[in-house]
Amino acid sequence: MTVKTILISENALSANREIAKQNRAALDVAGVVALNVMASPGAGKTSLIERTIEALGGRLRVGMINSDTSSAAMDAERAENAGAVTVHLNTAGRCHLDAGMVRDAMQCLPLGDIDLLLIENIGNLVCPAAWKLGAHWNVLIASTPEGDDKPYKYPKMYNDVDALVINKTDLLPYVSFDLDNFKRGVEGLNYGVTTFPLSCRSGEGLEQWLAWIASIADRKAAIAR
Amino acid sequence: MTVKTILISENALSANREIAKQNRAALDVAGVVALNVMASPGAGKTSLIERTIEALGGRLRVGMINSDTSSAAMDAERAENAGAVTVHLNTAGRCHLDAGMVRDAMQCLPLGDIDLLLIENIGNLVCPAAWKLGAHWNVLIASTPEGDDKPYKYPKMYNDVDALVINKTDLLPYVSFDLDNFKRGVEGLNYGVTTFPLSCRSGEGLEQWLAWIASIADRKAAIAR
Repeated sequence: MTVKTILISENALSANREIAKQNRAALDVAGVVALNVMASPGAGKTSLIERTIEALGGRLRVGMINSDTSSAAMDAERAENAGAVTVHLNTAGRCHLDAGMVRDAMQCLPLGDIDLLLIENIGNLVCPAAWKLGAHWNVLIASTPEGDDKPYKYPKMYNDVDALVINKTDLLPYVSFDLDNFKRGVEGLNYGVTTFPLSCRSGEGLEQWLAWIASIADRKAAIAR
Repeated sequence: MTVKTILISENALSANREIAKQNRAALDVAGVVALNVMASPGAGKTSLIERTIEALGGRLRVGMINSDTSSAAMDAERAENAGAVTVHLNTAGRCHLDAGMVRDAMQCLPLGDIDLLLIENIGNLVCPAAWKLGAHWNVLIASTPEGDDKPYKYPKMYNDVDALVINKTDLLPYVSFDLDNFKRGVEGLNYGVTTFPLSCRSGEGLEQWLAWIASIADRKAAIAR
Protein backbone atom coordinates (compact mmCIF):
# COMPACT_ATOMS: atom_id res chain seq x y z
CA MET A 1 0.00 0.00 0.00
CA THR A 2 1.34 3.41 -0.90
CA VAL A 3 0.91 6.40 1.33
CA LYS A 4 -0.64 9.46 -0.26
CA THR A 5 1.02 12.72 0.68
CA ILE A 6 -1.11 15.78 0.18
CA LEU A 7 1.10 18.79 -0.41
CA ILE A 8 -1.71 21.22 0.26
CA SER A 9 0.44 24.29 0.56
CA GLU A 10 2.51 23.61 -2.57
CA ASN A 11 -0.56 22.67 -4.62
CA ALA A 12 -2.39 25.80 -3.53
CA LEU A 13 0.62 27.96 -4.39
CA SER A 14 1.09 26.43 -7.84
CA ALA A 15 -2.64 26.77 -8.59
CA ASN A 16 -2.32 30.39 -7.51
CA ARG A 17 0.62 30.94 -9.86
CA GLU A 18 -1.50 29.71 -12.79
CA ILE A 19 -4.28 32.19 -12.01
CA ALA A 20 -1.69 34.94 -11.48
CA LYS A 21 -0.36 34.27 -15.01
CA GLN A 22 -3.91 34.57 -16.39
CA ASN A 23 -4.40 37.86 -14.50
CA ARG A 24 -1.14 39.17 -15.94
CA ALA A 25 -2.21 38.18 -19.45
CA ALA A 26 -5.59 39.93 -19.03
CA LEU A 27 -3.84 43.08 -17.76
CA ASP A 28 -1.40 43.01 -20.69
CA VAL A 29 -4.18 42.62 -23.25
CA ALA A 30 -5.97 45.63 -21.72
CA GLY A 31 -2.73 47.66 -21.56
CA VAL A 32 -3.00 48.10 -17.78
CA VAL A 33 0.06 48.26 -15.51
CA ALA A 34 -0.69 46.79 -12.07
CA LEU A 35 1.02 47.28 -8.71
CA ASN A 36 0.59 44.95 -5.72
CA VAL A 37 1.04 47.28 -2.71
CA MET A 38 2.04 45.50 0.50
CA ALA A 39 2.93 46.72 4.01
CA SER A 40 2.39 46.31 7.75
CA PRO A 41 -0.92 47.64 9.10
CA GLY A 42 -0.69 51.43 9.24
CA ALA A 43 2.49 51.89 7.20
CA GLY A 44 0.59 54.10 4.76
CA LYS A 45 -0.75 51.98 1.89
CA THR A 46 -4.00 53.91 1.55
CA SER A 47 -2.33 57.29 2.08
CA LEU A 48 0.22 56.64 -0.66
CA ILE A 49 -2.45 55.32 -3.03
CA GLU A 50 -4.65 58.34 -2.30
CA ARG A 51 -1.78 60.75 -2.96
CA THR A 52 -0.92 58.87 -6.17
CA ILE A 53 -4.49 58.99 -7.49
CA GLU A 54 -4.81 62.70 -6.65
CA ALA A 55 -1.52 63.54 -8.37
CA LEU A 56 -1.79 61.32 -11.46
CA GLY A 57 -5.57 61.13 -11.90
CA GLY A 58 -5.44 63.95 -14.49
CA ARG A 59 -3.17 62.08 -16.89
CA LEU A 60 -3.74 58.38 -16.00
CA ARG A 61 -7.01 56.53 -15.53
CA VAL A 62 -6.59 54.74 -12.22
CA GLY A 63 -8.36 51.66 -10.86
CA MET A 64 -8.00 50.35 -7.35
CA ILE A 65 -8.67 47.03 -5.63
CA ASN A 66 -8.83 47.68 -1.91
CA SER A 67 -8.77 44.73 0.46
CA ASP A 68 -9.62 44.43 4.13
CA THR A 69 -10.18 41.54 6.52
CA SER A 70 -13.56 43.05 7.39
CA SER A 71 -16.38 44.94 5.71
CA ALA A 72 -14.81 48.30 6.64
CA ALA A 73 -14.82 50.15 3.31
CA MET A 74 -13.35 53.50 4.42
CA ASP A 75 -10.13 52.99 2.43
CA ALA A 76 -12.07 52.14 -0.72
CA GLU A 77 -14.10 55.31 -0.17
CA ARG A 78 -10.90 57.36 0.18
CA ALA A 79 -9.64 56.00 -3.15
CA GLU A 80 -13.01 56.53 -4.83
CA ASN A 81 -13.14 60.12 -3.55
CA ALA A 82 -9.60 60.68 -4.84
CA GLY A 83 -10.84 59.72 -8.31
CA ALA A 84 -10.19 56.00 -8.87
CA VAL A 85 -12.67 53.36 -10.02
CA THR A 86 -12.59 51.19 -6.91
CA VAL A 87 -13.57 47.68 -5.86
CA HIS A 88 -13.65 46.80 -2.16
CA LEU A 89 -12.60 43.22 -1.44
CA ASN A 90 -13.56 41.82 1.98
CA THR A 91 -11.35 38.77 2.66
CA ALA A 92 -13.55 37.78 5.65
CA GLY A 93 -10.59 37.38 7.98
CA ARG A 94 -8.10 35.97 5.47
CA CYS A 95 -4.61 37.35 5.93
CA HIS A 96 -3.55 37.99 2.33
CA LEU A 97 -4.88 38.39 -1.21
CA ASP A 98 -4.53 35.55 -3.68
CA ALA A 99 -4.73 35.58 -7.47
CA GLY A 100 -8.29 34.18 -7.51
CA MET A 101 -9.60 37.05 -5.39
CA VAL A 102 -7.87 39.55 -7.68
CA ARG A 103 -9.28 37.83 -10.77
CA ASP A 104 -12.80 38.18 -9.33
CA ALA A 105 -12.20 41.83 -8.42
CA MET A 106 -10.77 42.55 -11.90
CA GLN A 107 -14.04 41.34 -13.42
CA CYS A 108 -15.79 44.19 -11.59
CA LEU A 109 -13.45 46.80 -13.12
CA PRO A 110 -13.65 48.35 -16.63
CA LEU A 111 -10.08 47.26 -17.52
CA GLY A 112 -10.30 48.79 -21.00
CA ASP A 113 -10.79 52.24 -19.43
CA ILE A 114 -7.86 51.99 -16.98
CA ASP A 115 -4.12 52.69 -17.37
CA LEU A 116 -2.95 51.93 -13.84
CA LEU A 117 -4.33 49.39 -11.35
CA LEU A 118 -3.33 49.77 -7.69
CA ILE A 119 -4.00 46.63 -5.62
CA GLU A 120 -3.91 47.28 -1.88
CA ASN A 121 -3.08 44.02 -0.15
CA ILE A 122 -3.97 43.11 3.48
CA GLY A 123 -1.74 44.85 6.05
CA ASN A 124 0.67 42.01 6.83
CA LEU A 125 4.46 41.57 6.49
CA VAL A 126 4.36 37.77 6.35
CA CYS A 127 1.65 36.04 4.32
CA PRO A 128 1.22 38.24 1.20
CA ALA A 129 4.86 37.58 0.19
CA ALA A 130 4.09 34.01 -0.92
CA TRP A 131 1.07 34.78 -3.09
CA LYS A 132 1.66 36.28 -6.52
CA LEU A 133 -1.32 38.19 -7.90
CA GLY A 134 -0.28 38.78 -11.49
CA ALA A 135 0.76 42.40 -10.85
CA HIS A 136 3.75 43.75 -12.79
CA TRP A 137 5.36 45.32 -9.74
CA ASN A 138 5.35 44.13 -6.14
CA VAL A 139 5.80 47.21 -3.96
CA LEU A 140 6.53 47.20 -0.23
CA ILE A 141 5.93 50.22 1.99
CA ALA A 142 8.11 50.32 5.11
CA SER A 143 7.58 53.12 7.63
CA THR A 144 10.10 54.72 9.96
CA PRO A 145 8.20 54.17 13.27
CA GLU A 146 8.24 50.40 12.58
CA GLY A 147 12.00 50.44 13.21
CA ASP A 148 15.05 49.68 11.09
CA ASP A 149 15.18 45.95 11.96
CA LYS A 150 12.26 44.83 9.80
CA PRO A 151 14.31 43.55 6.81
CA TYR A 152 16.14 41.23 9.21
CA LYS A 153 12.90 39.95 10.77
CA TYR A 154 10.66 39.68 7.71
CA PRO A 155 13.25 38.68 5.07
CA LYS A 156 10.85 36.88 2.72
CA MET A 157 8.87 40.06 2.18
CA TYR A 158 11.92 42.25 1.58
CA ASN A 159 13.55 39.61 -0.61
CA ASP A 160 10.78 39.38 -3.18
CA VAL A 161 9.69 42.96 -3.84
CA ASP A 162 10.50 45.04 -6.92
CA ALA A 163 10.26 48.47 -5.31
CA LEU A 164 10.50 49.75 -1.75
CA VAL A 165 8.95 52.88 -0.25
CA ILE A 166 10.21 54.19 3.10
CA ASN A 167 7.25 56.22 4.33
CA LYS A 168 6.92 58.67 7.26
CA THR A 169 10.35 60.26 6.84
CA ASP A 170 8.81 63.31 8.57
CA LEU A 171 8.91 61.26 11.82
CA LEU A 172 12.68 60.56 11.60
CA PRO A 173 13.55 63.16 14.27
CA TYR A 174 11.17 61.50 16.75
CA VAL A 175 11.75 57.76 16.26
CA SER A 176 14.69 55.34 16.49
CA PHE A 177 15.32 54.47 12.86
CA ASP A 178 18.89 53.91 11.71
CA LEU A 179 18.65 54.31 7.94
CA ASP A 180 22.09 52.75 7.40
CA ASN A 181 21.16 49.63 9.35
CA PHE A 182 17.87 49.40 7.43
CA LYS A 183 19.66 49.78 4.08
CA ARG A 184 22.26 47.15 5.01
CA GLY A 185 19.43 44.71 5.78
CA VAL A 186 17.67 45.45 2.50
CA GLU A 187 20.89 45.22 0.44
CA GLY A 188 21.66 41.79 1.88
CA LEU A 189 18.31 40.52 0.61
CA ASN A 190 17.47 42.55 -2.46
CA TYR A 191 20.50 44.39 -3.76
CA GLY A 192 19.78 47.50 -5.80
CA VAL A 193 16.00 47.46 -5.29
CA THR A 194 14.39 50.74 -6.42
CA THR A 195 13.80 52.73 -3.21
CA PHE A 196 11.72 55.84 -2.47
CA PRO A 197 12.11 57.55 0.92
CA LEU A 198 9.13 59.86 1.28
CA SER A 199 6.45 61.30 3.53
CA CYS A 200 2.79 61.10 2.52
CA ARG A 201 2.10 63.63 5.26
CA SER A 202 4.59 66.36 4.30
CA GLY A 203 4.82 65.45 0.62
CA GLU A 204 8.63 65.24 0.74
CA GLY A 205 9.98 62.70 -1.77
CA LEU A 206 6.59 62.07 -3.40
CA GLU A 207 7.75 63.61 -6.68
CA GLN A 208 10.25 60.80 -7.39
CA TRP A 209 7.65 58.14 -6.62
CA LEU A 210 5.07 59.77 -8.90
CA ALA A 211 7.61 60.16 -11.71
CA TRP A 212 8.43 56.46 -11.43
CA ILE A 213 4.78 55.41 -11.57
CA ALA A 214 4.16 57.68 -14.54
CA SER A 215 7.20 56.25 -16.34
CA ILE A 216 6.15 52.61 -15.90
CA ALA A 217 2.60 53.45 -17.04
CA ASP A 218 3.97 55.28 -20.10
CA ARG A 219 6.22 52.34 -21.01
CA LYS A 220 3.22 50.02 -20.73
CA ALA A 221 1.13 52.26 -22.96
CA ALA A 222 3.96 52.36 -25.55
CA ILE A 223 4.08 48.55 -25.63
CA ALA A 224 0.28 48.28 -25.88
CA ARG A 225 0.19 50.66 -28.90
CA MET B 1 -20.63 7.03 -2.66
CA THR B 2 -20.28 9.66 0.07
CA VAL B 3 -18.09 12.67 -0.32
CA LYS B 4 -15.48 13.21 2.34
CA THR B 5 -15.10 16.79 3.48
CA ILE B 6 -11.80 17.61 5.12
CA LEU B 7 -12.26 20.54 7.50
CA ILE B 8 -8.56 21.18 7.75
CA SER B 9 -8.79 24.58 9.31
CA GLU B 10 -11.35 23.62 11.97
CA ASN B 11 -9.54 20.40 12.83
CA ALA B 12 -6.24 22.22 13.18
CA LEU B 13 -7.83 24.85 15.41
CA SER B 14 -9.49 22.32 17.70
CA ALA B 15 -6.25 20.30 17.97
CA ASN B 16 -4.55 23.58 18.85
CA ARG B 17 -7.11 24.31 21.56
CA GLU B 18 -6.35 20.94 23.19
CA ILE B 19 -2.61 21.67 23.32
CA ALA B 20 -3.35 25.19 24.58
CA LYS B 21 -5.32 23.66 27.47
CA GLN B 22 -2.35 21.42 28.31
CA ASN B 23 -0.01 24.43 28.21
CA ARG B 24 -2.32 26.32 30.56
CA ALA B 25 -2.41 23.36 32.95
CA ALA B 26 1.41 23.11 32.94
CA LEU B 27 1.70 26.84 33.64
CA ASP B 28 -0.82 26.62 36.48
CA VAL B 29 0.97 23.67 38.09
CA ALA B 30 4.24 25.64 37.97
CA GLY B 31 2.56 28.81 39.29
CA VAL B 32 3.53 30.83 36.22
CA VAL B 33 1.35 33.61 34.79
CA ALA B 34 1.73 33.84 31.01
CA LEU B 35 0.99 36.69 28.59
CA ASN B 36 0.60 36.29 24.81
CA VAL B 37 1.85 39.62 23.43
CA MET B 38 0.57 40.42 19.94
CA ALA B 39 0.93 43.45 17.64
CA SER B 40 1.73 44.70 14.15
CA PRO B 41 5.38 44.62 13.14
CA GLY B 42 7.15 47.50 14.88
CA ALA B 43 4.38 48.47 17.33
CA GLY B 44 6.76 47.90 20.24
CA LYS B 45 6.41 44.30 21.49
CA THR B 46 10.10 43.87 22.24
CA SER B 47 10.48 47.38 23.67
CA LEU B 48 7.58 46.87 26.09
CA ILE B 49 8.84 43.42 27.10
CA GLU B 50 12.35 44.81 27.63
CA ARG B 51 11.03 47.67 29.80
CA THR B 52 8.89 45.20 31.77
CA ILE B 53 11.79 42.84 32.44
CA GLU B 54 14.07 45.71 33.48
CA ALA B 55 11.46 47.14 35.86
CA LEU B 56 10.11 43.92 37.39
CA GLY B 57 13.17 41.66 37.15
CA GLY B 58 14.11 42.46 40.74
CA ARG B 59 10.89 41.11 42.23
CA LEU B 60 9.64 38.64 39.59
CA ARG B 61 11.54 35.90 37.80
CA VAL B 62 10.75 36.44 34.13
CA GLY B 63 10.89 34.01 31.22
CA MET B 64 10.42 34.96 27.59
CA ILE B 65 9.55 33.10 24.41
CA ASN B 66 10.55 35.28 21.49
CA SER B 67 9.35 34.38 18.02
CA ASP B 68 10.45 35.52 14.59
CA THR B 69 9.77 34.34 11.05
CA SER B 70 13.55 34.13 10.53
CA SER B 71 16.65 33.23 12.48
CA ALA B 72 17.16 36.87 13.53
CA ALA B 73 17.63 36.57 17.31
CA MET B 74 18.23 40.24 18.20
CA ASP B 75 14.97 40.53 20.13
CA ALA B 76 15.74 37.40 22.17
CA GLU B 77 19.15 38.90 22.94
CA ARG B 78 17.52 42.15 24.09
CA ALA B 79 15.27 40.20 26.50
CA GLU B 80 18.17 38.06 27.71
CA ASN B 81 20.27 41.18 28.32
CA ALA B 82 17.37 42.74 30.23
CA GLY B 83 17.43 39.73 32.57
CA ALA B 84 14.92 37.14 31.35
CA VAL B 85 15.52 33.45 30.67
CA THR B 86 14.80 33.46 26.95
CA VAL B 87 14.01 30.97 24.20
CA HIS B 88 14.15 32.10 20.58
CA LEU B 89 11.56 30.44 18.37
CA ASN B 90 12.15 30.61 14.61
CA THR B 91 8.83 29.90 12.87
CA ALA B 92 10.60 29.54 9.49
CA GLY B 93 8.25 31.88 7.72
CA ARG B 94 5.04 30.92 9.55
CA CYS B 95 2.85 33.89 10.32
CA HIS B 96 1.76 33.13 13.91
CA LEU B 97 2.58 31.03 16.95
CA ASP B 98 0.50 27.98 17.74
CA ALA B 99 0.14 26.08 21.00
CA GLY B 100 2.45 23.26 19.84
CA MET B 101 5.32 25.67 19.23
CA VAL B 102 4.78 27.20 22.66
CA ARG B 103 4.67 23.75 24.28
CA ASP B 104 8.03 22.92 22.69
CA ALA B 105 9.51 26.26 23.77
CA MET B 106 8.16 25.82 27.33
CA GLN B 107 10.10 22.55 27.56
CA CYS B 108 13.30 24.58 27.14
CA LEU B 109 12.43 26.87 30.07
CA PRO B 110 12.86 26.17 33.81
CA LEU B 111 9.15 26.78 34.57
CA GLY B 112 9.63 26.06 38.28
CA ASP B 113 12.00 29.03 38.52
CA ILE B 114 9.75 31.52 36.72
CA ASP B 115 6.89 33.72 37.94
CA LEU B 116 6.01 35.49 34.70
CA LEU B 117 6.24 34.20 31.11
CA LEU B 118 6.11 36.75 28.29
CA ILE B 119 5.38 35.20 24.89
CA GLU B 120 6.18 37.52 22.00
CA ASN B 121 4.06 36.46 19.02
CA ILE B 122 4.88 37.13 15.34
CA GLY B 123 4.24 40.74 14.29
CA ASN B 124 0.87 40.32 12.59
CA LEU B 125 -2.63 41.76 13.21
CA VAL B 126 -4.49 38.94 11.48
CA CYS B 127 -3.36 35.35 11.99
CA PRO B 128 -2.33 35.19 15.69
CA ALA B 129 -5.89 36.07 16.76
CA ALA B 130 -7.22 32.60 15.87
CA TRP B 131 -4.56 30.56 17.68
CA LYS B 132 -4.82 30.27 21.44
CA LEU B 133 -1.50 29.43 23.13
CA GLY B 134 -2.61 28.64 26.67
CA ALA B 135 -1.57 32.05 28.02
CA HIS B 136 -3.70 33.59 30.79
CA TRP B 137 -3.83 37.00 29.16
CA ASN B 138 -3.91 37.90 25.48
CA VAL B 139 -2.41 41.37 25.15
CA LEU B 140 -2.51 43.55 22.04
CA ILE B 141 -0.15 46.47 21.50
CA ALA B 142 -1.49 49.17 19.18
CA SER B 143 0.73 52.12 18.30
CA THR B 144 -0.26 55.67 17.44
CA PRO B 145 1.55 55.93 14.04
CA GLU B 146 -0.49 52.92 12.81
CA GLY B 147 -3.57 55.16 12.81
CA ASP B 148 -6.85 55.13 14.72
CA ASP B 149 -8.72 52.99 12.17
CA LYS B 150 -7.13 49.65 13.08
CA PRO B 151 -9.96 48.32 15.32
CA TYR B 152 -12.34 48.75 12.39
CA LYS B 153 -10.01 46.99 9.96
CA TYR B 154 -8.70 44.14 12.15
CA PRO B 155 -11.78 43.47 14.31
CA LYS B 156 -10.98 39.83 15.11
CA MET B 157 -7.77 40.82 16.84
CA TYR B 158 -9.33 43.65 18.86
CA ASN B 159 -12.36 41.52 19.68
CA ASP B 160 -10.51 38.71 21.39
CA VAL B 161 -7.86 40.39 23.56
CA ASP B 162 -7.94 40.78 27.34
CA ALA B 163 -5.75 43.87 27.58
CA LEU B 164 -4.80 46.63 25.16
CA VAL B 165 -1.68 48.80 25.17
CA ILE B 166 -1.61 52.02 23.10
CA ASN B 167 2.13 52.56 22.60
CA LYS B 168 4.06 55.56 21.22
CA THR B 169 1.88 58.21 22.85
CA ASP B 170 4.99 60.46 22.61
CA LEU B 171 4.33 60.63 18.84
CA LEU B 172 0.75 61.92 19.22
CA PRO B 173 1.71 65.53 18.31
CA TYR B 174 3.26 64.34 15.03
CA VAL B 175 0.79 61.74 13.72
CA SER B 176 -2.91 61.62 12.76
CA PHE B 177 -4.39 59.55 15.56
CA ASP B 178 -7.89 60.40 16.80
CA LEU B 179 -8.02 58.73 20.21
CA ASP B 180 -11.82 59.11 20.40
CA ASN B 181 -12.33 57.36 17.07
CA PHE B 182 -9.92 54.60 18.13
CA LYS B 183 -11.73 54.13 21.46
CA ARG B 184 -15.14 54.03 19.76
CA GLY B 185 -13.86 51.25 17.51
CA VAL B 186 -12.48 49.28 20.46
CA GLU B 187 -15.62 49.74 22.56
CA GLY B 188 -17.79 48.40 19.77
CA LEU B 189 -15.78 45.18 19.77
CA ASN B 190 -14.49 44.69 23.29
CA TYR B 191 -16.31 46.92 25.73
CA GLY B 192 -14.41 47.77 28.90
CA VAL B 193 -11.15 46.06 27.90
CA THR B 194 -8.27 47.05 30.23
CA THR B 195 -6.30 49.72 28.34
CA PHE B 196 -2.86 51.24 28.92
CA PRO B 197 -1.85 54.31 26.89
CA LEU B 198 1.94 54.61 27.27
CA SER B 199 5.26 55.38 25.64
CA CYS B 200 8.11 52.90 25.90
CA ARG B 201 10.38 55.67 24.67
CA SER B 202 9.50 58.42 27.17
CA GLY B 203 8.33 56.10 29.95
CA GLU B 204 4.99 57.93 30.29
CA GLY B 205 2.21 55.58 31.42
CA LEU B 206 4.53 52.63 32.03
CA GLU B 207 3.86 52.71 35.77
CA GLN B 208 0.20 51.64 35.39
CA TRP B 209 1.18 48.80 33.04
CA LEU B 210 3.86 47.55 35.42
CA ALA B 211 1.50 47.74 38.41
CA TRP B 212 -1.05 45.66 36.49
CA ILE B 213 1.52 42.98 35.56
CA ALA B 214 2.77 42.84 39.15
CA SER B 215 -0.80 42.50 40.44
CA ILE B 216 -1.70 39.59 38.14
CA ALA B 217 1.58 37.84 39.01
CA ASP B 218 0.89 38.34 42.73
CA ARG B 219 -2.62 36.95 42.39
CA LYS B 220 -1.22 33.92 40.60
CA ALA B 221 1.37 33.38 43.32
CA ALA B 222 -1.35 33.62 45.98
CA ILE B 223 -3.40 30.93 44.21
CA ALA B 224 -0.34 28.70 43.76
CA ARG B 225 0.50 28.85 47.48
